[in-house]
Amino acid sequence: MIGWPVPDPQIPSAAHAVLAEAAKAASAAFRDARARYDRAQLAETSSIGADGTASMRLDLLVEGAIAEVVEAHRINLLSEEVGFVDNGSAVTLVADPVDGTANAAAGVPLSAFSGAIVLDETPVEALTCWLDTGRCWHAVAGRSPEFRTSGRRSLDGAAVSLLRPHERSADAWWRVAKRAARVRILSTTCLETMLVAEGSTDAFADANSDTHRIVDLVAAMVALPGAGGAVLDVHGRPLEIDPDLRRRWSGVAAATPELADELAATIRG
Amino acid sequence: MIGWPVPDPQIPSAAHAVLAEAAKAASAAFRDARARYDRAQLAETSSIGADGTASMRLDLLVEGAIAEVVEAHRINLLSEEVGFVDNGSAVTLVADPVDGTANAAAGVPLSAFSGAIVLDETPVEALTCWLDTGRCWHAVAGRSPEFRTSGRRSLDGAAVSLLRPHERSADAWWRVAKRAARVRILSTTCLETMLVAEGSTDAFADANSDTHRIVDLVAAMVALPGAGGAVLDVHGRPLEIDPDLRRRWSGVAAATPELADELAATIRG
Repeated sequence: MIGWPVPDPQIPSAAHAVLAEAAKAASAAFRDARARYDRAQLAETSSIGADGTASMRLDLLVEGAIAEVVEAHRINLLSEEVGFVDNGSAVTLVADPVDGTANAAAGVPLSAFSGAIVLDETPVEALTCWLDTGRCWHAVAGRSPEFRTSGRRSLDGAAVSLLRPHERSADAWWRVAKRAARVRILSTTCLETMLVAEGSTDAFADANSDTHRIVDLVAAMVALPGAGGAVLDVHGRPLEIDPDLRRRWSGVAAATPELADELAATIRG
Repeated sequence: MIGWPVPDPQIPSAAHAVLAEAAKAASAAFRDARARYDRAQLAETSSIGADGTASMRLDLLVEGAIAEVVEAHRINLLSEEVGFVDNGSAVTLVADPVDGTANAAAGVPLSAFSGAIVLDETPVEALTCWLDTGRCWHAVAGRSPEFRTSGRRSLDGAAVSLLRPHERSADAWWRVAKRAARVRILSTTCLETMLVAEGSTDAFADANSDTHRIVDLVAAMVALPGAGGAVLDVHGRPLEIDPDLRRRWSGVAAATPELADELAATIRG
């Protein structure tokens, strides 16, 4: 069993009711799951999610709690395991119930709830909460949030977080690792992009492994531009809200548009 | 400025008074430094420490607070920046005041105080506290602590944390990364070894870059054996308390002695 406490999320008062309730529900379900199941049980997989990967017990439990919030508000849901739940609303909650599930199930204290309110196909507001500490980041599209990126413009000397290297894209990974002053792999895209948004790291990237789904990137797409940064795909593919979660991208989140472009070009080689 | 709060460390009541006081002093100094200085000021370097690397302002401030505790108790100190302070005692506090200083100064919430009580040349008790959350791990040599490793015996399928890759040892790094099921780089040896000790990851290694100093490894040397694991050097060099902090090792901490041996052999190639 993982004995560490799960604190309540510190949700900014300005957050949309659905985001606030979903984050609280996710945190409570996370706490309950860790009290009831050991590491192996949390990580147990019994089905394939809408994104094409196996769903862990922890994912399903937390997503179930979020789905109840969405049903009560009679909006739609687009989420990792269940896929698109169409309740005929113009509003959709796009959520990653537990980003960094492998961390969370093992006890590595780096996992997050991440959600965005999408009107038709446009993300308008986002909330990311670090489940292990309760720290939250809130942003509204088109406005400056209460945090700011580092402002760094070039890769040389930058602190870069990466997804773990894969053999199919090892060259791209090394090209970035060689030039960055610092390299980290925290294995939680949603938290790592918020560290970029608040200026604690300079950039985060999937170095061409096409691992990212839109649920991993949508909160960063809302938060980064207003904080001075940018989010894009390595190959310039548009980042779109698509009910088909099998679509993948190699996302880049960076402190400035210039750094995002340089990082993407370095990864393309 | 980094706005997140620094909570008090949750120190187990059984901890040695010097370790408890040093951890509290480190946490208070860390909180004070973050309230007074911005990221660039925290990371500013003005001198070379006893380990041969540049000392950041944050390191010096936290070490200064620990040195006061040591002076009050009239014992010796062996610490990253100041080196060995000989007060003629048989007891030495061996400390890494801020492990993961680069994380801490930037705002990446992964940094720790780590200290061990050494009698003559034998580490007898250790305390590691995650400064960003207050979580602490306490261990007494020869006893089972209140945590246990995962018990994993083989590298295939293991979750392994690594120091960032260096060009001089890239092959070794890649050999481990290819075989591990999960790879992380959290850039804080003291926290990463405690995640091994509590069973949240299976192993941690410096893949032959000879970056580790004894202050990085001493708490793990006390905590791991009683929790089922092992700590060793990739090349079998003895892990010794030596006042010369320029001595380096490539440390391996693993859930079992078998996994530690396999990891070291894989790194040697």
